[in-house]
This record gives sequence, structure tokens and C-alpha cells, in this order.
Amino acid sequence: MYIIVVGAGRVGQSLIKIATERGHNVVVIDRDENKCSEIVEKHDVIAIYGDSTIKTILEDAGAQKADALVTTTNDDAVNLLTVLVAKELGIKSLVSLVSQPDHALMFRRMGVNVMENPAQAVAEYLYRVLQRPSIRDFMSIGGGEAEIFEIVVTERAAVVGRTLDELKLPLKDTLIVAITRDEEIIIPRGDTMIRDGDRVTVFALARRIEEITKLFTG
Amino acid sequence: MYIIVVGAGRVGQSLIKIATERGHNVVVIDRDENKCSEIVEKHDVIAIYGDSTIKTILEDAGAQKADALVTTTNDDAVNLLTVLVAKELGIKSLVSLVSQPDHALMFRRMGVNVMENPAQAVAEYLYRVLQRPSIRDFMSIGGGEAEIFEIVVTERAAVVGRTLDELKLPLKDTLIVAITRDEEIIIPRGDTMIRDGDRVTVFALARRIEEITKLFTG
Amino acid sequence: MYIIVVGAGRVGQSLIKIATERGHNVVVIDRDENKCSEIVEKHDVIAIYGDSTIKTILEDAGAQKADALVTTTNDDAVNLLTVLVAKELGIKSLVSLVSQPDHALMFRRMGVNVMENPAQAVAEYLYRVLQRPSIRDFMSIGGGEAEIFEIVVTERAAVVGRTLDELKLPLKDTLIVAITRDEEIIIPRGDTMIRDGDRVTVFALARRIEEITKLFTG
Amino acid sequence: MYIIVVGAGRVGQSLIKIATERGHNVVVIDRDENKCSEIVEKHDVIAIYGDSTIKTILEDAGAQKADALVTTTNDDAVNLLTVLVAKELGIKSLVSLVSQPDHALMFRRMGVNVMENPAQAVAEYLYRVLQRPSIRDFMSIGGGEAEIFEIVVTERAAVVGRTLDELKLPLKDTLIVAITRDEEIIIPRGDTMIRDGDRVTVFALARRIEEITKLFTG
Amino acid sequence: MYIIVVGAGRVGQSLIKIATERGHNVVVIDRDENKCSEIVEKHDVIAIYGDSTIKTILEDAGAQKADALVTTTNDDAVNLLTVLVAKELGIKSLVSLVSQPDHALMFRRMGVNVMENPAQAVAEYLYRVLQRPSIRDFMSIGGGEAEIFEIVVTERAAVVGRTLDELKLPLKDTLIVAITRDEEIIIPRGDTMIRDGDRVTVFALARRIEEITKLFTG
Amino acid sequence: MYIIVVGAGRVGQSLIKIATERGHNVVVIDRDENKCSEIVEKHDVIAIYGDSTIKTILEDAGAQKADALVTTTNDDAVNLLTVLVAKELGIKSLVSLVSQPDHALMFRRMGVNVMENPAQAVAEYLYRVLQRPSIRDFMSIGGGEAEIFEIVVTERAAVVGRTLDELKLPLKDTLIVAITRDEEIIIPRGDTMIRDGDRVTVFALARRIEEITKLFTG
Amino acid sequence: MYIIVVGAGRVGQSLIKIATERGHNVVVIDRDENKCSEIVEKHDVIAIYGDSTIKTILEDAGAQKADALVTTTNDDAVNLLTVLVAKELGIKSLVSLVSQPDHALMFRRMGVNVMENPAQAVAEYLYRVLQRPSIRDFMSIGGGEAEIFEIVVTERAAVVGRTLDELKLPLKDTLIVAITRDEEIIIPRGDTMIRDGDRVTVFALARRIEEITKLFTG
Amino acid sequence: MYIIVVGAGRVGQSLIKIATERGHNVVVIDRDENKCSEIVEKHDVIAIYGDSTIKTILEDAGAQKADALVTTTNDDAVNLLTVLVAKELGIKSLVSLVSQPDHALMFRRMGVNVMENPAQAVAEYLYRVLQRPSIRDFMSIGGGEAEIFEIVVTERAAVVGRTLDELKLPLKDTLIVAITRDEEIIIPRGDTMIRDGDRVTVFALARRIEEITKLFTG
Repeated sequence: MYIIVVGAGRVGQSLIKIATERGHNVVVIDRDENKCSEIVEKHDVIAIYGDSTIKTILEDAGAQKADALVTTTNDDAVNLLTVLVAKELGIKSLVSLVSQPDHALMFRRMGVNVMENPAQAVAEYLYRVLQRPSIRDFMSIGGGEAEIFEIVVTERAAVVGRTLDELKLPLKDTLIVAITRDEEIIIPRGDTMIRDGDRVTVFALARRIEEITKLFTG
Repeated sequence: MYIIVVGAGRVGQSLIKIATERGHNVVVIDRDENKCSEIVEKHDVIAIYGDSTIKTILEDAGAQKADALVTTTNDDAVNLLTVLVAKELGIKSLVSLVSQPDHALMFRRMGVNVMENPAQAVAEYLYRVLQRPSIRDFMSIGGGEAEIFEIVVTERAAVVGRTLDELKLPLKDTLIVAITRDEEIIIPRGDTMIRDGDRVTVFALARRIEEITKLFTG
Repeated sequence: MYIIVVGAGRVGQSLIKIATERGHNVVVIDRDENKCSEIVEKHDVIAIYGDSTIKTILEDAGAQKADALVTTTNDDAVNLLTVLVAKELGIKSLVSLVSQPDHALMFRRMGVNVMENPAQAVAEYLYRVLQRPSIRDFMSIGGGEAEIFEIVVTERAAVVGRTLDELKLPLKDTLIVAITRDEEIIIPRGDTMIRDGDRVTVFALARRIEEITKLFTG
Repeated sequence: MYIIVVGAGRVGQSLIKIATERGHNVVVIDRDENKCSEIVEKHDVIAIYGDSTIKTILEDAGAQKADALVTTTNDDAVNLLTVLVAKELGIKSLVSLVSQPDHALMFRRMGVNVMENPAQAVAEYLYRVLQRPSIRDFMSIGGGEAEIFEIVVTERAAVVGRTLDELKLPLKDTLIVAITRDEEIIIPRGDTMIRDGDRVTVFALARRIEEITKLFTG
Repeated sequence: MYIIVVGAGRVGQSLIKIATERGHNVVVIDRDENKCSEIVEKHDVIAIYGDSTIKTILEDAGAQKADALVTTTNDDAVNLLTVLVAKELGIKSLVSLVSQPDHALMFRRMGVNVMENPAQAVAEYLYRVLQRPSIRDFMSIGGGEAEIFEIVVTERAAVVGRTLDELKLPLKDTLIVAITRDEEIIIPRGDTMIRDGDRVTVFALARRIEEITKLFTG
Repeated sequence: MYIIVVGAGRVGQSLIKIATERGHNVVVIDRDENKCSEIVEKHDVIAIYGDSTIKTILEDAGAQKADALVTTTNDDAVNLLTVLVAKELGIKSLVSLVSQPDHALMFRRMGVNVMENPAQAVAEYLYRVLQRPSIRDFMSIGGGEAEIFEIVVTERAAVVGRTLDELKLPLKDTLIVAITRDEEIIIPRGDTMIRDGDRVTVFALARRIEEITKLFTG
Repeated sequence: MYIIVVGAGRVGQSLIKIATERGHNVVVIDRDENKCSEIVEKHDVIAIYGDSTIKTILEDAGAQKADALVTTTNDDAVNLLTVLVAKELGIKSLVSLVSQPDHALMFRRMGVNVMENPAQAVAEYLYRVLQRPSIRDFMSIGGGEAEIFEIVVTERAAVVGRTLDELKLPLKDTLIVAITRDEEIIIPRGDTMIRDGDRVTVFALARRIEEITKLFTG
Repeated sequence: MYIIVVGAGRVGQSLIKIATERGHNVVVIDRDENKCSEIVEKHDVIAIYGDSTIKTILEDAGAQKADALVTTTNDDAVNLLTVLVAKELGIKSLVSLVSQPDHALMFRRMGVNVMENPAQAVAEYLYRVLQRPSIRDFMSIGGGEAEIFEIVVTERAAVVGRTLDELKLPLKDTLIVAITRDEEIIIPRGDTMIRDGDRVTVFALARRIEEITKLFTG
């Protein structure tokens, strides 16, 4: 895949690393000449120093043969004008960070896939860790009505040493999706026994989360 | 809950918003006087302008009665020294952003909950959107061996109009965890019929993801 | 008319002056706090300091009752996102400066009236003055095929003291549109006599301009 | 022609482009070393880094053989002193931007052709577009007593399908100068028929503009 | 006298001090707001913050009633445009510092009294001190053909204890103009005796300076 | 002569020019690397970039063989420490600019020749020009009790066409020292006739200056 | 004591703290207005914002009644000129930091007590810690020929449990000056027994240090 | 010894000088590229430009074979994180400057040798000089209960010409440790005679210091 990454900030650099490690051809555009030099030293990419909203810059970056363009700057205005010019040049897949929630609509209307407000996503993660330190990762479903989360079973939890059948979980509201034990994934069955240290991936309706958390962490 | 937030950057500000909206008492510490003034205008918090690694600054922020402290700056060194001083002052719950993966270890050893490298998390999300634009949200399990992801069923998908039983999914490797339809969550059963526009939350081993994605998006 | 002017640079300030002098209600938005203060001292306007691409800033500027919004910044990206948000808020008349010719298309598609590349317009005017110092003002027609221009008749010109009929101009290619003499406009007729110092407004096809210029300036 | 351009800002750069494209020899003087390097990369010109008010700098720029010098900086003081030194060195044709209307007099007295206040010209254009969005270009005559303007005929206008003779325009106050249709210029006669989409160039006394505009745009 | 001083740098501030101490009304104009505040604190003057080349700023400074205007900035271009605008406003006496020797001509032509290149004057003074440390002050006459200088008589000088008549100075080439002894001025006569420590003011043709210097300093 | 010049500002640069033109060996020390490069390009000197108060820097500048050192910076503290170190290194002739009148004493005690407050000298010159525009140059004697000044005789002056004897000047208080006519110096005698345009060098006690000025300028 | 502290950097601030805590009247002078404000908030002192080399600033700081003045800036030139002006004003006790070893001489000649090169002192301390981590504090005597140092006795040292007499130290070259045990000082006698954890203050000639260190730390 | 020095400020540079002069291998890490270049020019070291808290930077600096690492920056946070990473990499001897006294604890817990607050040490030295100008150097023992100090015997002191035995010092509270005379160290005995100019090193309990000082300085 031929990917143009716009912006060589923290997110841009991480994306460049991920994409080059997986064998994609990556061209980076940034307005800071120093960052461009730095990127070229660290990764096997071409870096173009200039304004990504200018047609000729995008053409220099190979827009005519690019499969995708991702804008990662903090400036929604630059991201939007860049993807519009990129679209004009025929790039199919367009993805953009969007800092202001209100702006997401404009991007979506132009057919751009967006990741809204990453700072807020990070903040929500931190907040979650604050609230329930035992939960490692989570994913919200149905606008918050349910959640899937990974929880580490503690020594003092009531569930340790019991099988799933013995737990008598409210079947309609929760589901044990998977258990990760010693770096391996176990598809749980009724007779699977819970052990101290297991990372259990649970689906639960919002009103059950508190209860389930307690069950597995004591 | 009485929470001290260190750093009023993008992540810090989002966290302040989330925490105050949910009724917590929040005190913010930042080295930039202008940012402090700005925060106080926008949110119902106390902002303290100063160096968070200084004991008296943390005491001014109410460290003695704080339940938690979260450091959100980009500077791992500042984050680390701040949480160490906070720990000394008796704050129980300590959470920190960590930019350099290598530093996470130092924080963990001190008993600090960390969110590693948020830029990388955002970059991975963007990369995923690039690869599979139909997938809305996802969560990695067992270090990447399996994944839970939300996928939007497209008109042209083979599954539309069929029940789960008819799909004959490989039971050991995949699981339909939930379906979100018209903002409501449906706990799926064998006779649940898939419709165009459904957001289906699926658990799948890594080797099955491609196949499942195709099934639901055509 | 209720007009929102975005950007308080040279062009923005001139526009504010023109619009307030003609009795319009003007609200200005600029990212520079000092410029805002300066504007408020000089003109009878409201100045809002902030990012014009943010919905709430435009609402503070009275977007819901504004008849028009004009973006005058040098940054096409900011101009575009601002007019898009303004459109979303229901402002009917949208006008924008556009620095990069390639970007004009994006603005036009969104229904925005544009003034393209003002620096180039100024440069063309200067170039014209260099080439034909006797020509005071001009307007290009049909993409340059013809021109209307104002020329000052010099003492030594052959036309001085002659009537238009005597000039025998090539009727199909040129037209004497008006003559300004002693601050008054004369609608020329065949027997109107040309005098030294007259400012003659001429329409001419491109290939005739040189010849006509000579005729009136000697 | 050998032209010295003082100032490599937006206007200066546009002028350089225009002048080199038309085959002139251009030397640029700017106080910013980076801008000089940038200009030399983009255009076939010589760029001299230095203070244009210094005699030796102008001599380095070839003042003794230059046909013309154009000052395009925003600083009237620099522009004035530069043209005075240039005049001393014998350059015949001197042209200058002038930002402050009050200063134009000083330049004119020294025999310098000026373009006054370009920002105001741009602002007036924008204001005009705001007021009468259907008018594309215009030129003021006799200090505003009359105007020549280009207007696009709309579908719903009363004039569509009629000949000029049928329009019965007030002959003393207005004149249809030209019509641009399908990129071609038509010299109008009494039997020329107006069509939807025509760009009509009209001369009109100020008090008639409103009426004429309505006639052609409905 | 009502004096407008343009520029509140080192020279401007010294001039303000001198002029106010001698009872003149002084108004200062400077582009630096802080300098204006500072001046107002130290001296009994009005300070106007702004661009002295702008007509309204000069009017605010009382140009219509000012007797004189002195420009003291290091920027010849600003000095020149300022005095031109001041002349237009009817200020009679115009004085200006001029940094570039080549520019002095332009100022003189406009009827401005100039002090050319003060840095060079200071440098020449320093050079003189280096060359003849015994000479305290000097003034060049006839473009350097002659000089008037003040010299301190040293103990070891041959002239000590002799009368002027005894010195037999070459009458056509030198002249003892005055002697300063114990803070008093003595108009010298033939029988005036020279003493150690006298400050003798001498007129001498250039070719005699060396010889005279030796005579008085040994 | 081997001269070290400290400081390459306006005064320093003028001094370098004067000294090199007269054949001296000059070494310059300045804290600004760019200024050093600039100086070396323009003049035939060695420039040393560094802190002139450091012994090794002065040694690099050739202090051991230097005949003189002149400090020309605006910073009295730097000037003083530099001359002290230079003295320690055995440089005989030390000359310094001194900005603050109070500091002159410290320099003099160390045996340094000083030029006090050049800005004030310039300001006094300007003030003099303001007061008596006809006086070209002047020199103060006895702390202001008397003055020697050069004055240009105007057409309308009463003295034109008269001999010195006819003028009946108060002999004890004034003295006509020299007359410069057509670039030549005339040693005046009783029968020398004053002409319009003569530059007369006059010695006068303070109380006579006004009267004399009037006599020669009308 | 009435003390003027010049410079409110790290050292200056520490000195202010020490001096005010011990009841002295302190006035601070610094060139940075912000630092002055900060100091006044934290300590009970008067802070004067300005250039300490200016006589009137020192007078404002109360130089006429001050007992001492300490200059703590990093700029030797400023420190020197300040103490010279202070001396002129009659301040008796003058102390200064000196950064450049070569400059210490100039200060000493003026009768100023100096602390030379504090950065080097700190570096030497660090180097000592590196070399002999067991040595806590030390003081050099006779230009390095001998040293007094404090050493912590380790468990494994041969001296533990022995009396001083049993140690048979070379009497001419070493001396046990004091022992600090449990925060108390013991004046050692022959029968004093050394214990693990004692901090022993030893005087030793340079050639004996290694040997003694080993004896006490094993 | 292979030493990594972190920070090339004043202290860092002094340490580099000391360590290289004594033959150690030194590698420096600093965040300022210019400082790195400067260091390499002056000393025989390797300088690495980068963030010392990053593992790979420390590895580039040779952490795996380094015997010691010393952090000399003013930023406790950077110092702490650096030594933690260094410890992780196996460097045995870790030394750090610590600016904030409160932070010393955190460093000590990690097994780092610290020099606390060097600015305060310097300030205390200055304060001591102020209080007792005759004392040259000193060292505090037992938290201030006793002191060892070097004092210069003045001409007017009562002790001059007397032997130690004659002084009858309170034996339990004071001890004459050494005398430095003519650059040589004398181990004092009862019959050693005190001379004017001797530098006497004395141990004394705090309550005796005043009395002893007087005895030796008069």
C-alpha cells in the first residue's frame, strides 16, 4: 500500500513506524524542515517539507499513485483542506484526526474516515483507570449502554478456583468472552476454572459492570 | 473524589472536563500561567500555577486530602518525580501518561498505573481504519492473538437477512458478542437475524478476522 | 446588514472601515488578542478574540442572525473550514479571499464567492503601470481578449483638439465609453472634442491596445 | 526590460513570476536572506540580500542599466527612500506600492507612479461581492460617479431572450460595452440578443447601477 | 519653543533631557510603547506611541503648533518620510540624524538640517584620543586643512614658565585662542605666561599640529 | 600601530574603517559571531568572536604586542573589566566609551582615556542646530563659558562687504580665528573683508554668542 | 546588618533566605522585573528592579546606610562595576562571586572579598564523591597538601571495635579531629572506640588520604 | 574510569575539565546541540546530543561499560529519571546534583549519592564571608554543632608571637589542627609560635567560634 502521512508529530511518527514495519510505502509531508530530516534518519520513508494543502506538494508526494492519505495534524483546518485536495487528486482512502467534535461532520460529509478527538479518548482511558484500576482495556458499545472489558483476577477474588458454571452470572446481561492465561487465549466453557492472574474479557451491560468488577477483583 | 490533574494540555483539559462533569473535585497544576487562567474560566476547578514536582505546590493543591493524582504531561521525567513526591505525601491512587515505552517499567515499579504512549494508540487506531475502514472500534486480546471489534453490516453483505444459526460461524474461533440496532443493544441468540446497518460486536481469533470482516461487509 | 469579518489584517481592517462607514453592523473575529483591542478602539465594532473555525466562537459572533461572513485571512485552510462551519450555522452569504488558485475550486463548490489571489492582482496592476505608465485603471474582459482602460491624454498626443468623429477609430474593435474632465463624466458623442488632460475610458480588443495608447499619449 | 523588484513578499513574488514569464530580466532585493534563497530556487532571477535604500546595494542590483524599479514592501518609508536613491542613480521608471493614502502625495511629487493601498482595493472588491454577488469585476470612473462592471445574466432575469433594442436602456446613462459568451467577446449591436449565462459589461452612472443589476439578474 | 522629538533611543532621550531642562515644550513619538511609558516617568513631556510617518500621529503630537521636529532614529527611511510629512504639515525647522552618508543629500534637498553619521563622529573622536591622548577636544576647519584643539600643558613641556611672546610661534599658521586655568578663561596676550595644567585652545594649520602638540606636552 | 577594537557596533565599525584606512593593524573582538564574519568581509582585519573580558581571548587578539585597546560597547561594565584585564596584560594606551557619566571616574582612576556619553554629545549637537541653524560646528571651552563656532555668513548680514576693523568687535570677548572661503583658509587681518558665503570661525564668550550670531546671519 | 544583594538568581535567592531568616535587613537588586516581584512575594525584603551599576539605583537601595553589598550574578563585569560604584558610595563590606578565575585578582585589588568559581567548587565536590563515595564533606588545606574530611565508618572496616590508640595512626601525618555519633560530637581521646556508622572527621596529609580512607571503609 | 556526565552547564563543564585532566574517559550528554559542539572543541571527550532519559541515548554513551554517571542539570526530574534508567542499565556509581532539598530523599532511596542544593552552599559561603571576612574556608560538623575553619592571623591579633601553650585554649572545645605558613603545612605542637599571616586551621564547638575568631584577628 502507498500511504501519504500528513504531519510528523507524535501520532504521525508512530503511524510511520507502524506502517513501514508492516511493509507499506510511506511518504510524509510536514511543514517543519527539521522534523522532515529527523524522520528520514529514523525511518525508511521519503519526507517532503512543505504545505500539504498545496496541490503540487501532494503531487510531489505521489498523490496520483497513493492508495491512502492520513492527516494527523492538530489543525482541523489544515486536515480538511488537505483531504479535499487529495480527493480532487483521486486518492481513494482518506483518514483524518479531528480535534474539534463539531468538525467531524464536515469531514464525514466529504467521505473522510475520522478519528475524533484523540486527547479525549486518552483522557477517558485515564479516567477509567482512576475509577477502576483493575480494568486493563475496555471498549464501549451502544453509546455506553454496555462495555467489553479486560480485568485481571486478583488473589482475593471470590471467583478464584470456581468454574464459570458455578458463578451463575446473569446470562442476559453478561458474557465471559475470553480468558488470557500465560499469554494464551482460552475460549471459555462452562467447566473452565478461573485462576488468580487470569485476564478475563467480559461483556456486560452498564448496570452490571460494578458488580462484575467486584466479583473478579474482590 | 478529590483528584489532582497535573498538566493542562489537550489530554489534561479533556480529563478535567470529564471529571468535573461527573461531580469530582478537581485541582489542576500547570507550569503555564496563561493555561491556568484559561482553565479556571472554562471549568469549575482550582488551578495552581507552578512546578508540580515541588512538595509545597502539591500541598497547596491539597495533596493531603487528595484521593488520586494523574500526570498528563509529555515529559516522563516530570511525571515520574511528581508521582514520587505525591506518593511521599500519601496520595493513594497514582496514574500517569508515559511517552517512552522504556520508562513504563520505572513507573510500574513505584506502583503507578500507566497509560503508555498514547500517540501510538492513536496511530494504531488510524492504521486500523486505513486497513479495514468498516471496523469502527476494536480491542486487542492476548497480545494480538484475538480481537474484539465492532463492524457495520453493509447492504451488500452475504449475512443480511440471515439468522446467526444460518451463518455457521466456526464456534471455537469466533463469537457474536452483541448487536447494536437503532441505539439499542441486542444480546444475540441463534435465531437473531442480521440486518443492514447493524453494528455487530465480534470476538475472533486473529486468523479469522479477515474472513469475518468480509462476511459482514461484502 | 449584519456582517462577520474573519481576520483583522490589512484587508480585514479596510473592509471593517468600509462596512461600518456605510452603516452595517460588523463583528470581527481574530486569533490575535492585541489586534482585537486595536480594532475596537478605532472602529464601532465588536471584536471577538478566538478561532473562527470553532462553532461557539461563530455563535458568539452572532452567526444565527448574520447576513454574511467574509474571511480575509491569508490561510486558505482556515478560511475554508470557517465558511463551512458558518454555512452549517445558516449564514447565507459567504465570501472568501483565496490565496492559492488551486483552492478556489473547493470554495466555489461549497457555494462560496471568492476573490482569488489578491497579491497577484496587485502585482498585475504594478506590471501594467510599468508597461504603460499612462494607463490609470483597467479591467480585463473575456480572459484578456479585450480590455477597458482609462488613459490620460497628454499634451503631445495627436488626438488633442480633434473630435471623436475625426479620429476614425476602428469601430468594431474599440469604443470610447466615457470621458472624465474636471471631475465630471461626459458621455461622448461624435462631436465631442478631446482635450489635453482628459481621462478617456476606452474599450479595445487586445490587438488594438498598443495603437490606441499611442494615439492618446503621443 | 531590466527590472529591479524591491521586496519579495506576496506581491513581490507574484510580480517576479509575471515579469520573468514575459521575458524580462529581473533582479530582486530583500532584507530577508531566506526569502532571497527561496526566490532564486523558484525563479530565473538574481536575488540580492540587503537594504535597498543603500546606494551600493542598488548598484549591485544593476541600477545603472535598469529600466525600472518597483518597490513592493509594506513600509512606505523604505519604499520612498529606495525610489529616491534609485532616481539619483538614474533609473527612469519608478513604481511603488503605497500603504498610507496620505503618503501617495510624497511619491507623486518625486515623479513616482504609485499603487495606493492595495489592501483597501481588495477590501472594496470583497465589499462589492457582498453587496452584489452577481457582479464579477468592476472599475470605478470619475471618482465613483459612474462604473463599468461585468454582470452574469441569470436564468430568471427579465432580459433573457430580448434584444438590446427591446431593453430601452436610458441611453445617456448606460451603455452595453461588450458581451462575453462562450469565452468569446461580442461587440453588441441593437439586435444582439441577451442569453442566460452571458457576461455583460455595462457602463452606468452610479444612480442607475441598482436598476441595471436587477434587470440582468432578476 | 515647541519641539517634537521622534525616537526615544539614547540620542532621543538625551535630547529630551537637554530640551526640557532649558524650558522647552517637548513631545516625543516612539514606536515602542514601553519606551514611551519610561520617558513619561522620567521627564516632563508628552509621549505618543505610534508611527511618526503617519499624518494623524504627527497631528496628535501637535504638529500644527510645533516650531521644530527632530528625528533621531537609526532608520534613515523613517527619518526622511517623517520630515516630509512634517514639512507638509507646516513645521518650519526640521533636523535629522542621518546614518548613511549617501542619504544626506536627499535630506538637504528637502531643506532639512542634518547631522551625518554620529557613529563616525564618535569613532573619529576615539581615534584622535588614541593618536594624541593629550588633546581633549578639537574641531576641524576647512575640511581638515586647519584645526582648533584644546591641549593640556604637561609638567615636562618646554613652554612651562614662558610667555607667549617668548614662544615665537609661527604667526601665520597658529594662534593661541584661549587659556582655561582654574575653571576660568583667559584671553591670552603676549605677556601671558603658560603654566603646567593650563588647557590651551590653539588654532593651527594641519602641518603644524604635530609640532605644537609636542611644544605643549613635551 | 597595533590596535584592538572591542565591539563591532556602529561606532566600532566606523573606528575600524578609520584605523585600517590609515594603515594600522586592527584586531576586533565581538560577542556576536555574525558581526565578526561581516566585519572580516568588509575590512582587512582579524575578528575574534568571544568575550573580551576573558584573558585568553585578549591574548588571542594579540594583547602582548598591541599598542592600544579601545572599547566601544554600550555596556560600561564590559568596557571596564576589559580595560582592566588589558592593563594587566600590559597594553599601554587604553581608551573607552563610557555611557553613564557617573562611571567615567572609575575609568579615569584606572588610567583610561574616556569619551563620555556619546549619545549626549550627539543630542547637544542636534539641540544646537535647532537653536542656531546657521552654526555649523562648535566646541565648548571652559565648561561652557566660551565657545568657538563656525558660522555661515548670509546675504542679508550687516557684516557683508565690511572689513574686520570696521566691525568693531569687543576685542576682549570675541576673536575671529579663521575664515574659510572657496575651500581655503584665510588667517584674518584687520583689512580682511567679509563676504556672503564665508564660513567664519569665531571665538566668543558665552554672553556674546547671540549678538555675534546675529551680526553674521542678519 | 543592612545588606544589599545584587542578583536574584539561585545563589541570590538562597542568600536572601539565609540573611532574612537570621534577622538582617535585605534589599535586592535585579535586572529582571518578574524576578523582583517573585522575591517580594516569598521573602520579607525590598526588591529594586534596575541596573545595579547605576549610582542612583544603589542609592535607591539604601547604599548610604548599607553595611555590606554582595554581588551574586554570573557576569563578572557587572559584579565588578557594581562593587566599584558601591565602594564609591562608602559601603564597607563588599563580597562578590567571581566566575572567571583570572578576574579574581581585579576584585581583590579593589579590596573585595571573593568566592571564586562556584561551579568549579561544585564540580570538585561531585568528583570527590565519585572517587571516594564514603567521604561526606571535605576541606582542602595548604593548596591541597593536606585535607580535612568526614568519613562514614562502614561495617566491614578494620577499625570497628578498636580504640584510637590501637589504630597506631602515623601521628605526624594524620589527626582524628572529631567523631559525630548519634547527632552528637565526641572529642576523641586515645580510648575512644570506633563504631560502625560513626562519622569521623580526619586531618591527613595528601599522601595518607588513600590509606586512611581504606582503614575506615574497608 | 569511564564516566558519563549528564548536562554541560557550568558545573558539568567544570567536572569534564577536572575528570579529563586526571585521565578519565568522559562522555557528555546534553540537550543543546551547540553546547555539545563547544565541549568537543575544548576538551578531549565524546559529546552526545540528546535526551539523557532515553535508554538508547545512554547506550550510545556507552552505559554498558561506564563505571559512573553524574547528572549535573538544574532539573531534578531529568536527573532522577536519568539515574533510574542508568541503574537499570547496570551503571554502579550514580551521583546527582539535587536542587530541591525535598527531592534528595527520592534520590537517596534509589541508592544515588547526591550533592544537595549547590546554590545554597554557595550562598552560605557568601554569608559566612560577610559575617566573618577573616575566615577563608570552613566545614560544618555534626549539623552545625562544631566547625573546622581556616583563619588568617592579623597583625593586631593578641596571639601573634605566642606559643600554642601560652594561648591556654579550652582543650575540650577547640583544637588547632594545622598551620599553613609560606605555602607549607605545620603540624602544630605546644611550642609552635603563631605569626602574623599564618593561616590557622581550627576545630571549635559552635559556642567558641566567636571567641576564637577574635583571638586570631584582633
